[in-house]
Amino acid sequence: MKNYAKTSVAAGPRAELHDALGLTGAEVSVNELPAGASVPFVHAHKQNEEIYGILAGAGYAVLDGEKVELKAGDWIRVAPAVKRQFFAAAAEGIKYICIQVKAGSLQQYTAGDAIL
Amino acid sequence: MKNYAKTSVAAGPRAELHDALGLTGAEVSVNELPAGASVPFVHAHKQNEEIYGILAGAGYAVLDGEKVELKAGDWIRVAPAVKRQFFAAAAEGIKYICIQVKAGSLQQYTAGDAIL
Repeated sequence: MKNYAKTSVAAGPRAELHDALGLTGAEVSVNELPAGASVPFVHAHKQNEEIYGILAGAGYAVLDGEKVELKAGDWIRVAPAVKRQFFAAAAEGIKYICIQVKAGSLQQYTAGDAIL
Repeated sequence: MKNYAKTSVAAGPRAELHDALGLTGAEVSVNELPAGASVPFVHAHKQNEEIYGILAGAGYAVLDGEKVELKAGDWIRVAPAVKRQFFAAAAEGIKYICIQVKAGSLQQYTAGDAIL
């Protein structure tokens, strides 16, 4: 595997980066929902923590039945077992990234993992 | 630990989400460099793969001595041992996220990890 890989994500409903970049520690997707739309299903995960970052627009998530409002600049962590569904606002679309990682897999980071 | 956590990232040079969200599988940072600026050091990692996503602006990375141009919408994977440094363009700032994950830690994802 090459030491690095690069791809470019254009506007669109969903781009998945795992295969495009040869990721080994995460799946990352870039997602867009138009105003009034939602992901058409509720889901949870077996192993993976999900981290969502809102890049633009507004909407909300329903997490185990609780409505959580989301707008650009918001980030959320969702534990694997949480039942989740994502919605754009009625009058505004939403663009967000979703990062899937194995819960508990990070052993060290930043200064603790760096070689300077 | 609560089933989910939420935070909001304002404009600024760097926001780190690991502690803010109680992440267990990644560190995620949101970074901004003004035009002409750079991260002031070269670094590599012991365990962690890094995934960078360019949210706005333009710049470049130097990866093991190779210059890689970056603009909004670009994503790169960088293997742990790669010596890396990030720069904003001379005439334009850059805003990017950096995701740190343990290389090789993802066992399954998306449909393979989902509970529907």
